[in-house]
Amino acid sequence: MHRFLSPIILLLLFSGNIALGQKEDSLVIRKIFTEAISDTTAYHNLRHLCTRIGGRLCGSPQAEKAVQWAKTTLEAMGLDTVWLQECRVRHWVRGNTEELAVVRGTSAVVRFHACAIGGSVGTGKAGLVAKVVEVPDFDGLKALGRKNIEGKIVFFNHQPDPSHYNTFGAYGELVRYRVAGVNYAASYGAIGVIVRSATLTQDDFAHTGILHYADTVKKIPAMALSLNDAGKLANLLKATPGLEISMNLSSTEYPETTSYNVIGEIHGAVHSEKVIAFGGHIDSWDTGQGAHDDGTGIMQAIDVLRIFKTLNLKPACTIRVVLFMDEEMSQRGAKKYGEFAKAQEDLYRTQQASGSTGDPAGAAKSQHLGSHHVAAIETDRGGFTPFGFSIEATDDQIGKIRRWKDLLLPYGLYSFEKGGSGVDIRELKQLGIPLLDLVPDSQRYFDFHHSASDIFANVNPRELQLGTFSIAAMVYLIDKYGL
Amino acid sequence: MHRFLSPIILLLLFSGNIALGQKEDSLVIRKIFTEAISDTTAYHNLRHLCTRIGGRLCGSPQAEKAVQWAKTTLEAMGLDTVWLQECRVRHWVRGNTEELAVVRGTSAVVRFHACAIGGSVGTGKAGLVAKVVEVPDFDGLKALGRKNIEGKIVFFNHQPDPSHYNTFGAYGELVRYRVAGVNYAASYGAIGVIVRSATLTQDDFAHTGILHYADTVKKIPAMALSLNDAGKLANLLKATPGLEISMNLSSTEYPETTSYNVIGEIHGAVHSEKVIAFGGHIDSWDTGQGAHDDGTGIMQAIDVLRIFKTLNLKPACTIRVVLFMDEEMSQRGAKKYGEFAKAQEDLYRTQQASGSTGDPAGAAKSQHLGSHHVAAIETDRGGFTPFGFSIEATDDQIGKIRRWKDLLLPYGLYSFEKGGSGVDIRELKQLGIPLLDLVPDSQRYFDFHHSASDIFANVNPRELQLGTFSIAAMVYLIDKYGL
Repeated sequence: MHRFLSPIILLLLFSGNIALGQKEDSLVIRKIFTEAISDTTAYHNLRHLCTRIGGRLCGSPQAEKAVQWAKTTLEAMGLDTVWLQECRVRHWVRGNTEELAVVRGTSAVVRFHACAIGGSVGTGKAGLVAKVVEVPDFDGLKALGRKNIEGKIVFFNHQPDPSHYNTFGAYGELVRYRVAGVNYAASYGAIGVIVRSATLTQDDFAHTGILHYADTVKKIPAMALSLNDAGKLANLLKATPGLEISMNLSSTEYPETTSYNVIGEIHGAVHSEKVIAFGGHIDSWDTGQGAHDDGTGIMQAIDVLRIFKTLNLKPACTIRVVLFMDEEMSQRGAKKYGEFAKAQEDLYRTQQASGSTGDPAGAAKSQHLGSHHVAAIETDRGGFTPFGFSIEATDDQIGKIRRWKDLLLPYGLYSFEKGGSGVDIRELKQLGIPLLDLVPDSQRYFDFHHSASDIFANVNPRELQLGTFSIAAMVYLIDKYGL
Repeated sequence: MHRFLSPIILLLLFSGNIALGQKEDSLVIRKIFTEAISDTTAYHNLRHLCTRIGGRLCGSPQAEKAVQWAKTTLEAMGLDTVWLQECRVRHWVRGNTEELAVVRGTSAVVRFHACAIGGSVGTGKAGLVAKVVEVPDFDGLKALGRKNIEGKIVFFNHQPDPSHYNTFGAYGELVRYRVAGVNYAASYGAIGVIVRSATLTQDDFAHTGILHYADTVKKIPAMALSLNDAGKLANLLKATPGLEISMNLSSTEYPETTSYNVIGEIHGAVHSEKVIAFGGHIDSWDTGQGAHDDGTGIMQAIDVLRIFKTLNLKPACTIRVVLFMDEEMSQRGAKKYGEFAKAQEDLYRTQQASGSTGDPAGAAKSQHLGSHHVAAIETDRGGFTPFGFSIEATDDQIGKIRRWKDLLLPYGLYSFEKGGSGVDIRELKQLGIPLLDLVPDSQRYFDFHHSASDIFANVNPRELQLGTFSIAAMVYLIDKYGL
């Protein structure tokens, strides 16, 4: 007889434990699902944010209201810590005068569904009146040359490759004209830019978003046209050579102002110095209500904390919601949080190296003691049915997450692929922190993104709630098993 | 030296062929995707069907218009055969008088968002006025007993288990009250029925659908309330014992009439006697425009044929679109097609047994020669982002389909599970034909299903097109590799 258990028996016992652990996890995850899908707090909070506060561009009074609303809401949840993290933000104002472009030179004046691109300079009160040259891409500018562009308005009318399954692929093609079109056009002497909106939807909504002026060229004004009107303008240009456009943008850049990330947490019962952070951005564009971008994201993140409290789940690590300010313009909130995380990580490593654990129980309560991020999760791709996560981590860490697949597949989460993370958590990459991005269905996102149709009415409560579930389940598993 | 190739080399060569085949398939499937996602014919056809013809309940003039539209459309596509398959259908008319319930016994009259359940008898011109008893389920009736129910209106206010991921789970719980509530209630002497709509959406839309009267009980009228109003009625009943409801339904059942399945096909280049059929139903409820149920399904099915023609794909087998009449009431079109398929299969088997192949080249052209269904695919779960297929087939056949997964996963198709098929193709089960149901995201389907919100504006073109792609790719693979 053997005094020790044979490897096979050990394996069986071990498998038994796995099976038992999976069974327990499966039950907890079922509870998380039922709580997420049946509670409407997040949906009603989203209604408030969207319809009572509305679009909340950084630096605006609405953004300030949203910060106060979030702080009050987190405080009312009875979390262990709620704090504001100060950052400086730009204060660009679209202005309230006419932004529609007007075509002259045709028999009738034509007005377009248009909007200023975020960060654009204004046209001055007189507006711009100039001829328009249409190009499909940056090469088109080169082909025309300065003599055909100087003193004109450039119309970037890029048609994306239609064969993208994920709409972010087409967006990636289109967004470069919105972001950098002004610099390319100005370098050829253009005096204004019009871009086809970075969307796939053939309708009347114009989509804004940020542009970045290069220091080396003149700052010229820029606006986006709806897809219907981009088509209309292209047809007019064919029919009427020498057509003139009137652009009238009253956008103004005011001095920078102070704003805040909003942070709330439940302290870890075992390792309060270890942090699992998750969140989205509290600011939004001013054209709509910032519903899918990113109202749904912050409501999901807040709701994860509510679920842990309601189900009395006691996380071993500190779980922290971060509502980032200024994702849309300059990611100042993300930079501030990144600096904070780095300082905390440095302190944590020093303490680890010296054999001191500092004051683990109190670490998370204070910004002056070291802490370490186990993982960070971002949700900023719209409140649609989630498919899984895009993971920026080591192969081992991704492999670990994939071993949880059977627990998550019953809820439609099947995709756990290596991929990029969102801009709000990307600052943490340099610290070697595993980063996860919630990946929902992308098909409808750019229908709404940055436009007047990004409103509460276009959010489905169940889709929102499935995102909450996905993050909560992932936080539960990371907290229990580490990464 | 070996004169024959070693097993390993054979294996390598064989793998090479597989890899080559997969590469070819991958390219064809990419072409199918690009064609499906960039062509808008199906979307514009759906607009026509929904906004020019509208809701098209079997037996109605709109259903007849839809049949004619479909026949003309298929004929214009230059298919090899287009034909109508006659069937007899019910002719129930909702009527155009007031269906809203009015509450008496409160200080003010309350009007509800309500609609007759499909197939309900009318109330007569005077309407019904009676007290209401609310029950959560059929057991609730039993608990109350005849003395508390007789002469009253029963209000089935069932709250489904919230923990279903797939919304069809909750629908399955709710729909029994709509379908059979009248029989249970009438057996206790009730004179009318109200049901909470079979939806998960807290709004003002009432959802219709069919009911089935048992022969053994009196036929009593039935209507559905929106979820907002079901809640309102429940609150009123708590606040005002003895509350009375006035029901006024002018629904009428007219004699049966003649209608049609619409069928179109491209003949197989190699085995025209072998058929891959796919389709949805051309009829719809009359409350909305039948957009997701099942306008999207029939447009997808028609578009599969267009894609095969446009890409000049020559299927080995005959590929056939079937637009079934009368899915919503009695599935008469499905029964008729089932009888036709059985007769053809019998003839085919006789021919096979006798060693004669009949006239394969002409088989599909005629309804009098034998043919055999290789597979049938139904699309009737709404025009949402597809996840895969539910498959009613042998394990071997399902295993074969799963081996195509890598080809389909890039387009979001990950789920190929054994499961039930739709009612329009279920008649083919007895013939041993593998049945596939397209499975799209279910989260939003019952928001629209059978209600006035099932309209064209609630369909996203890309989601519709992804369904088209999924069916076309599956037809391509089944045609090439068999099942």
